[in-house]
Amino acid sequence: MPKDAVDLAAKLSSFSQYWSPKVVARLNDYEIKVVKLSGEFVWHKHDDTDELFFVIEGELTIRMRDGDVHLRSGQLFVVPRGVEHCPVARGEVHAMLIEPAGVVNTGDAGGPLTAEFDDSLA
Amino acid sequence: MPKDAVDLAAKLSSFSQYWSPKVVARLNDYEIKVVKLSGEFVWHKHDDTDELFFVIEGELTIRMRDGDVHLRSGQLFVVPRGVEHCPVARGEVHAMLIEPAGVVNTGDAGGPLTAEFDDSLA
Repeated sequence: MPKDAVDLAAKLSSFSQYWSPKVVARLNDYEIKVVKLSGEFVWHKHDDTDELFFVIEGELTIRMRDGDVHLRSGQLFVVPRGVEHCPVARGEVHAMLIEPAGVVNTGDAGGPLTAEFDDSLA
Repeated sequence: MPKDAVDLAAKLSSFSQYWSPKVVARLNDYEIKVVKLSGEFVWHKHDDTDELFFVIEGELTIRMRDGDVHLRSGQLFVVPRGVEHCPVARGEVHAMLIEPAGVVNTGDAGGPLTAEFDDSLA
């Protein structure tokens, strides 16, 4: 029985909402998500976990209190646990996120950009 | 202080060995590795963990006893724990691997393709 690869671009083409990560695969107790970003998110942190950002398309800045990191296609950055950060997308950005299951996108900040859990693409 | 993104293509351009994964970043107790593949690896499994393959460049087949998966650039597959698999690269393939720290590339099979741990690019 042939098995299916997970095509990130195909998954991303199936929805249009920004700041709404979708689980596309699982790795032990971690989730692999794709997300579309546009403009500035909210400052927040995750006290219990690191968070991996991998840029598929576009240009993403991750602001942090002690310095920013700039990411473009094919680049990744791991935000350490407990570090306040604010993703800022120049135009539209397509990214992959990897983190343990159950992490909420807005971390400790909450608010209107908090996304519902969505594994309908997994 | 500006921080550095991890550029996967740049990391891959810095070495030439095949089947020798290099750690480029850490995510909690997981390692993010890049690897160059060519030809056929060995059949093996990892009894304690899933293993994520993400193809950056080239065409990779992951053979499994009950079916193969074919991956090209921008596609990923998670080999479930305990599932025997044999990666086969058509020509040269550049890939990212994600798995818990300490996983050995040849799993239960061992043998001459077993790679030394290498985090000199992290």
